[in-house]
Amino acid sequence: MPKIVDHDERRLELVDATWRIIARLGIEGATMREIAIEAGFANGALKPYFPTKDVLLAFAFNHVFNRTNARVAAVTAGKSGLPALRDFCREVLPLDEERVNEARIVIPFWQKAVNDEEKSAIHRASMDQWHHMILGYLGQARMNGDVTTPVPDDAIAGQLLNMLLGAQITAALAPPELTAEGPAAGQPLSAALVAQLEGYLGLLSPAR
Amino acid sequence: MPKIVDHDERRLELVDATWRIIARLGIEGATMREIAIEAGFANGALKPYFPTKDVLLAFAFNHVFNRTNARVAAVTAGKSGLPALRDFCREVLPLDEERVNEARIVIPFWQKAVNDEEKSAIHRASMDQWHHMILGYLGQARMNGDVTTPVPDDAIAGQLLNMLLGAQITAALAPPELTAEGPAAGQPLSAALVAQLEGYLGLLSPAR
Repeated sequence: MPKIVDHDERRLELVDATWRIIARLGIEGATMREIAIEAGFANGALKPYFPTKDVLLAFAFNHVFNRTNARVAAVTAGKSGLPALRDFCREVLPLDEERVNEARIVIPFWQKAVNDEEKSAIHRASMDQWHHMILGYLGQARMNGDVTTPVPDDAIAGQLLNMLLGAQITAALAPPELTAEGPAAGQPLSAALVAQLEGYLGLLSPAR
Repeated sequence: MPKIVDHDERRLELVDATWRIIARLGIEGATMREIAIEAGFANGALKPYFPTKDVLLAFAFNHVFNRTNARVAAVTAGKSGLPALRDFCREVLPLDEERVNEARIVIPFWQKAVNDEEKSAIHRASMDQWHHMILGYLGQARMNGDVTTPVPDDAIAGQLLNMLLGAQITAALAPPELTAEGPAAGQPLSAALVAQLEGYLGLLSPAR
């Protein structure tokens, strides 16, 4: 009987191998050959899945974005307004090692996107979607009085998105001892990011 | 008579050539050879100034940072508190083509820094300096009643820095028609960033 290959699953294996290689060697060191070795593929066996490193990188970025959105959907289920906005932000912020690694993936993607209109369009589509989600949460929060600032929602959504983007850079370039997990690690960066988020949400409801 | 060469000036010529090449070809296309051609240097004449592309890139980043700080010092001269904070932020935000180009330089630098402790330390030292400057402005603004929020200054400074970092990504990946200057361009991105900044500064003084 012929072996049944789940192509979607193999694509995700390649994405995981790409994460690990980029985290270890940087994006320039992450050659198709290195990624194949890491994923246990024969040299050349990647081509049917990803003809070029560029295609793989775009797929990997979309995967990070989709995974973040799946987490957001899970944690905001049944919530709305300010609690949903808080949970959305907490999922996007790089508060644990998995998400710090995602930040390390997304920065090389942004760098590629600076000179690549197709990739920058992928980034913008993701940000437009999040902008829209934030506007929805803010609208609900204003309805129930949790957000009372006269600052327009559009400016708040833009600030918040830029803040979430900037936090990826801060985390990806933090010294390892500030982002590592485990009993020995104090995780002061994630504590600082949570304090920033709570402070920001506090700014939105000055009248309370 | 021997020609007198101003080595500092030549270094800056090379940095300017590096900007132009990265903006045109991306960081991977910006080889030492391409940079030499762009600056009008003979092949190999770069080596005495910058032995490697890495050294050139670190110098270029520091130059952007120093240039931003020189602009900040000029626009904040004689000011303090909230007006100084506003002008600081307006200088760091990518509000014109020169600064959008600086954002296009700084993203490749961040990408390199993800796997390079020396470069990420340069980034952190710059951010620490700005964090300290923001705390100074906030302290003055609280003294004269311009900032009244109970949110701690440290959280505000962290938020603001992340917002300024994120704005670099937003600008560098914006469609060209949103960041171009000139009579035909509407510059809606810079208008959006200014609206975000003014909105944010408004959040800091809810009692007024």
